Amino acid sequence: MKRTRIKELFRQKELFSEKSVTVCAWVRTNRSQAQFGFLNINDGSFFENLQVVYDTNLENFDEVSKYRVGSSVCVEGVVVLTPEMKQPLELHAKKVTLLGDCPENYPIQPKRHTREFLREVAHLRPRTNLFSAIFRIRSVAANAIHTYFQDRGYVYVHTPLITCADCEGSDQMFKITTLNLNKLPLAKDGKVDYSKDLFGKQAFITGSGQLQGETFAMAFGDIYTFGPTFRTENSNTKTHANEFWMIEPEMAFCDLEGLMDIEEEMLKFVVKYVLDKCPEEIDFCDKFVEKGLKEKITSLLESKFTRIKHHDVIDILKKANVKWEFEPNYGEDIAKEHEKYITEYFNGPVFITDWPKDIKAYYMKLNDDNETVAAVDLVVPQAGELMGGSQREENLEKLMARMDALGVDKEGIDWYLDTRRYGGCVHSGFGMGFERLIMYLTGIENIRDVIPYPRTPKNCEF
Amino acid sequence: MKRTRIKELFRQKELFSEKSVTVCAWVRTNRSQAQFGFLNINDGSFFENLQVVYDTNLENFDEVSKYRVGSSVCVEGVVVLTPEMKQPLELHAKKVTLLGDCPENYPIQPKRHTREFLREVAHLRPRTNLFSAIFRIRSVAANAIHTYFQDRGYVYVHTPLITCADCEGSDQMFKITTLNLNKLPLAKDGKVDYSKDLFGKQAFITGSGQLQGETFAMAFGDIYTFGPTFRTENSNTKTHANEFWMIEPEMAFCDLEGLMDIEEEMLKFVVKYVLDKCPEEIDFCDKFVEKGLKEKITSLLESKFTRIKHHDVIDILKKANVKWEFEPNYGEDIAKEHEKYITEYFNGPVFITDWPKDIKAYYMKLNDDNETVAAVDLVVPQAGELMGGSQREENLEKLMARMDALGVDKEGIDWYLDTRRYGGCVHSGFGMGFERLIMYLTGIENIRDVIPYPRTPKNCEF
Repeated sequence: MKRTRIKELFRQKELFSEKSVTVCAWVRTNRSQAQFGFLNINDGSFFENLQVVYDTNLENFDEVSKYRVGSSVCVEGVVVLTPEMKQPLELHAKKVTLLGDCPENYPIQPKRHTREFLREVAHLRPRTNLFSAIFRIRSVAANAIHTYFQDRGYVYVHTPLITCADCEGSDQMFKITTLNLNKLPLAKDGKVDYSKDLFGKQAFITGSGQLQGETFAMAFGDIYTFGPTFRTENSNTKTHANEFWMIEPEMAFCDLEGLMDIEEEMLKFVVKYVLDKCPEEIDFCDKFVEKGLKEKITSLLESKFTRIKHHDVIDILKKANVKWEFEPNYGEDIAKEHEKYITEYFNGPVFITDWPKDIKAYYMKLNDDNETVAAVDLVVPQAGELMGGSQREENLEKLMARMDALGVDKEGIDWYLDTRRYGGCVHSGFGMGFERLIMYLTGIENIRDVIPYPRTPKNCEF
Repeated sequence: MKRTRIKELFRQKELFSEKSVTVCAWVRTNRSQAQFGFLNINDGSFFENLQVVYDTNLENFDEVSKYRVGSSVCVEGVVVLTPEMKQPLELHAKKVTLLGDCPENYPIQPKRHTREFLREVAHLRPRTNLFSAIFRIRSVAANAIHTYFQDRGYVYVHTPLITCADCEGSDQMFKITTLNLNKLPLAKDGKVDYSKDLFGKQAFITGSGQLQGETFAMAFGDIYTFGPTFRTENSNTKTHANEFWMIEPEMAFCDLEGLMDIEEEMLKFVVKYVLDKCPEEIDFCDKFVEKGLKEKITSLLESKFTRIKHHDVIDILKKANVKWEFEPNYGEDIAKEHEKYITEYFNGPVFITDWPKDIKAYYMKLNDDNETVAAVDLVVPQAGELMGGSQREENLEKLMARMDALGVDKEGIDWYLDTRRYGGCVHSGFGMGFERLIMYLTGIENIRDVIPYPRTPKNCEF
């Protein structure tokens, strides 16, 4: 038996007109009359359902008319194009077989479910239209990112998740161990004896692969990472999760301007790719998640992103006739309300550059003013900060001085400093939270709804 | 300044003939005479070096002739095709600028280094020919896998790494925690009080996304995962690492034969993709890592993989005139020596199917004989087992009986059982260790040499 995917039928319908095909799929609805009935089935290959028409010519008509929502079925039939109807084609059944039954108490009935309820059945929610759209967009966007970088010769690097380098501040990292926590071996000082642990010292799972990524950029020129990342933040907001995916490209011989060029080009590439491959999903999100979504992301393709210094952003915010919750300040980060104002002010994405050094990381390049660093945040309408990056400090002395000033342990990452010792060069990189991108592309406001099985404080089900 | 990548020069050399270009790269060698010299430079975009010819017309000729190995430089010059020479083109320098110096004690000198030594400078080893080849093949092979599945409509699913489901046996999983191990909160029974931990219960990082993957296959039909995986095995062998990447596809409406078709097609696709995109790297590995590598993987493309039952494999092994270290047995796993014999016997990859149920996992479909399961291992010449998969037990009663027999906790993964309750169907999946694939594609025998920063017992550097 050769099985035909529903996507093939929709995308190449002329090819299948009047042809016999076999489709295996799940029942989304079943409406039966005395003499005939309609099964709407979906096999997951395509966003839209396939309508199956069946009638009393089926020897098992009575049973078929009772097939329940959620059941899996196999349908042999003839494809009939229906250009005058809402759906462009339907399948006239010659044989319908039940593969797997589904009881009455199936939680995913053809009605509106709240997203809160669907989080409780996260293993079933991809069977709904909304999550079918979200997770297909997630998959296609992931491939868009790989395609963008691979087509341009970037090397995809699997930086390690397990690390013993405590440089990011272990407070923000999960500790991992193979020791029995109820019988921890103790050293003479009464503290845990990590020499007995698998790696012989305390280990963590990491929040970033940037430092290792930089070492590979010094060999391959252009590299990117794309993998899971962990944060221990005990914060129950719509935008925080303890496990998420991140993309971290790193480019040798690239300065801040070059970095912004890449960020802008990549984002446009991904948006276009998703629009091309997932038109049905985007239309659905536009209709049911965020009105105007399609217009928002389509217009991004044509827009030239604004590039403006942090100092000048603060100027604009201070002049604005707005009662701020947080007063804008030259030496400080900008708040969500400021991001919103500034993207509306420029009516599109904005690169904010040259941030006060005191609120940014040690590895960012110190500008000649000695006060700001060559960092850039990309903020976009609705979603806020989408990417954060910087030119890296390539000067070893300046880098070490910043590490000293900020109390960063140099010994543990002496290997990282080698990137500045041995043929160092101007280089830049950025990080993009993948879930943030998916929220931007779908209009979904809660990170729990763009991750297959989200992990948040007190929540690690499935 | 527009920078040209060395790969562009080599791949489109006619286009650049007699043109002026600017190349930024690192010095691999520098041979200078009184009146002229040769810089071999590499920018990481391409496996081969670009030869730069410079002479006393350069105003800084004396300095350039002293540029050391490992330095980063910027060269402006004219591309000259040299079809009569070993290298197809060279760059006649008009201007050479030092970007970043490199001291004499740079560990990566143009001589042979042992792989053991290079593991100690894992942050520098991608600058060598060997690791440049390996890690570019790794990147391209990763993209081949994404391309194969995405082109066929599979949905890429990011299954969670953090899990509280203890179903795999927590002995094999790293425990993760945000608790202070030197001040663990204790419950009344004197044991660790995990209710104080971030997730409110004990958490792990997982060794497989299969179960969650199956839930998504029941919605999207065809899905795959590709992400890092963790094992706590305290085993220092050439093929074990505590962190590695794995691909786990899962297909609804697919039986064991269909599964093997996919495995075979995917492997051939990946091999062809890597041969097409990395000819220089494969040639290098063929020459310096595994003689005959190219012939091995090229002939795979033409071969039809053998499909044979475990029982019949044992028959062949028993009849073989070989003194085995491990005697082949119908009820047991097959050893490395057996895998080797059987791939040589059939002179190519072999699918071994229908394994004794007692040595396989509970979720594999029980065959009608009640003794074997519809499992399949793919073994390939040299590398041994490359993929392991099975048709899944779709019958809820049989699945639960197997879980009971093997003492698997049903309550913790009741959600998994829902895949059999609600519209279950015949489905199959497999897992492929990505490093195993890279070892097969490069001929490298030690897993430490195909992972950017390997994690093995007592070894978690960088």
